[in-house]
Amino acid sequence: MLLAPAAMAQTTLAPRDEPAKVIPVPTDVSPQLQAVIAQPLRRGWNTPPTTPQGWKQMADAEAAAATAVVEPMAKRLHVTITQGTIDGVHVYRVTPDVIPARDAHRLLVHVHGGCYVLNPGEAALPEAVLMAGFSHIPVISVDYRMPPTAYFPAALDDAMTVYKAALKMEKPQNIGVFGGSAGGALTLEMMLQAKQQHLPMPGAIDVNTPMADDVYWGDSGQTNALVDNVLVSPTGFCESATVFYAHGHDLADPMISPLNGDFHGFPPTILLTGTRDLLLSNTVRTHQKLLQSGVHADLLVFEGMSHFQFTISDRIPEDRQAFTELSAFLDKHLGH
Amino acid sequence: MLLAPAAMAQTTLAPRDEPAKVIPVPTDVSPQLQAVIAQPLRRGWNTPPTTPQGWKQMADAEAAAATAVVEPMAKRLHVTITQGTIDGVHVYRVTPDVIPARDAHRLLVHVHGGCYVLNPGEAALPEAVLMAGFSHIPVISVDYRMPPTAYFPAALDDAMTVYKAALKMEKPQNIGVFGGSAGGALTLEMMLQAKQQHLPMPGAIDVNTPMADDVYWGDSGQTNALVDNVLVSPTGFCESATVFYAHGHDLADPMISPLNGDFHGFPPTILLTGTRDLLLSNTVRTHQKLLQSGVHADLLVFEGMSHFQFTISDRIPEDRQAFTELSAFLDKHLGH
Repeated sequence: MLLAPAAMAQTTLAPRDEPAKVIPVPTDVSPQLQAVIAQPLRRGWNTPPTTPQGWKQMADAEAAAATAVVEPMAKRLHVTITQGTIDGVHVYRVTPDVIPARDAHRLLVHVHGGCYVLNPGEAALPEAVLMAGFSHIPVISVDYRMPPTAYFPAALDDAMTVYKAALKMEKPQNIGVFGGSAGGALTLEMMLQAKQQHLPMPGAIDVNTPMADDVYWGDSGQTNALVDNVLVSPTGFCESATVFYAHGHDLADPMISPLNGDFHGFPPTILLTGTRDLLLSNTVRTHQKLLQSGVHADLLVFEGMSHFQFTISDRIPEDRQAFTELSAFLDKHLGH
Repeated sequence: MLLAPAAMAQTTLAPRDEPAKVIPVPTDVSPQLQAVIAQPLRRGWNTPPTTPQGWKQMADAEAAAATAVVEPMAKRLHVTITQGTIDGVHVYRVTPDVIPARDAHRLLVHVHGGCYVLNPGEAALPEAVLMAGFSHIPVISVDYRMPPTAYFPAALDDAMTVYKAALKMEKPQNIGVFGGSAGGALTLEMMLQAKQQHLPMPGAIDVNTPMADDVYWGDSGQTNALVDNVLVSPTGFCESATVFYAHGHDLADPMISPLNGDFHGFPPTILLTGTRDLLLSNTVRTHQKLLQSGVHADLLVFEGMSHFQFTISDRIPEDRQAFTELSAFLDKHLGH
């Protein structure tokens, strides 16, 4: 029965009582992805660091461990990683060893994820390496400043610095911006800032499982809680990290929760998530808002995937498929 | 950690132990949709009829109750419902009172849902009324034979009869085919049959939350079990109904589980599901298979929606939005 709003206001809306369940690993994904899905919940998801030094140690440990994953993957995908600085911002350049003529004047700017606090250094790079490898377009990955070195809006400022520099390197319509999780949010925040600063929009953006609303994680924040083995819970380490980055700033600000911003005039956008992703709702809410703002927006949802598992390895068939599809979208919408 | 396939074969993949949860009604959807989400699990979801007469009584009761919903909605959306017969198949014609010139030579064929057993008569029509109302294109809705009158493949045979008749009324590229749940599966099955019979493809199809795989309902069949308040469980009434329709036939046959078919050559397709939909996985698996078959395929996912709740009423903002987006897709891809 459909209740009229007046009647509803007098009604307490009943929550759903979901009983305990034992959820088997799905049989309709690759054995490689099955192994990922079968992994237990992220260790320490509900015991985040409580000091700036604790966060820094966690981030540094990730960066140190990343090399063993990133460098062999770069080799397999025939891309080369170099470091540099652009207008004071530390960046990695991930460059395909062979760049087709069609991609010679294209450029991608990558903003990594990690709840605005994690994944410094090479820990940022699996997404960038996969994208460069599959799209054959050079990538500049922004190693933006993070807490405890710098707080909101340092990450966004650094990303904008690199975007402005990119606009001097190639035509706007030949530039793509992409990122996942906090990097997906940053990509959206960059578009909001570009509009405010009257900068040209890029040719296309790729927004993967974005932290688009840090105040309310949406229905999947509840339905996929303790099912997603990466983020696990809307009240876990990632929320703590975001609060640490915000440094007292209002989490509802569109420059932290870009779903609260105005998406009109955004470039063609592709979004990606998974059925077990805690940010499934944030992703589909962003997709719907883009469509309602007149933006061309495509959505990909991968069976059984938790948050951000499309970037684990080129050896997972679904991850290869994800970057094949993301690359096809960029190829279709970027100028050349 | 990524396990090599050899190591995995020796490993029992651990299921996820999801504890009991109390899931509040999401706050990021309209009050009207909140009221829908707050409804309890479908009454009798796990006590389906056990006799042919029991199923028929259930279906007839739905049809009798539907008039009070369908006819006021048709009036509000300025469409007129008439009944008729096409080559022996009972149909409803849902015709916009005003048809724009751009839509004058367009035609939509609708195949309703209901697990192949339910929603006879006017119970089939909310989806058709909403589509005619928002697209302004005339709709022919197939009131296909169902058990206990007729079993597999009667539903598909009747749908094909009407599709062949439609091909004589308008150019193939001006025709769209659409349906949800079993109707989404039937739409896919019709495309498989059209290829086998060397019939032309329509200009576009709309496949809403399809029962694309009746053997394995995918990961969301587990994660959204007892969360989706419409289908509730992969071992509930809908499975029983499908087995009743199959009448001993193999459920893995692509003419019942079209996800097992070959999608190459399908027309542009749009798919729709919700984050709480038990068939979220079936929908995204179908979307991925279409993309991998070279088909232009768009995906829409609505926040908080269980199975098929996008067709409840034109008074629910999200349902209006759904048909606005589905109509825009058809308008873009159909000839005229």
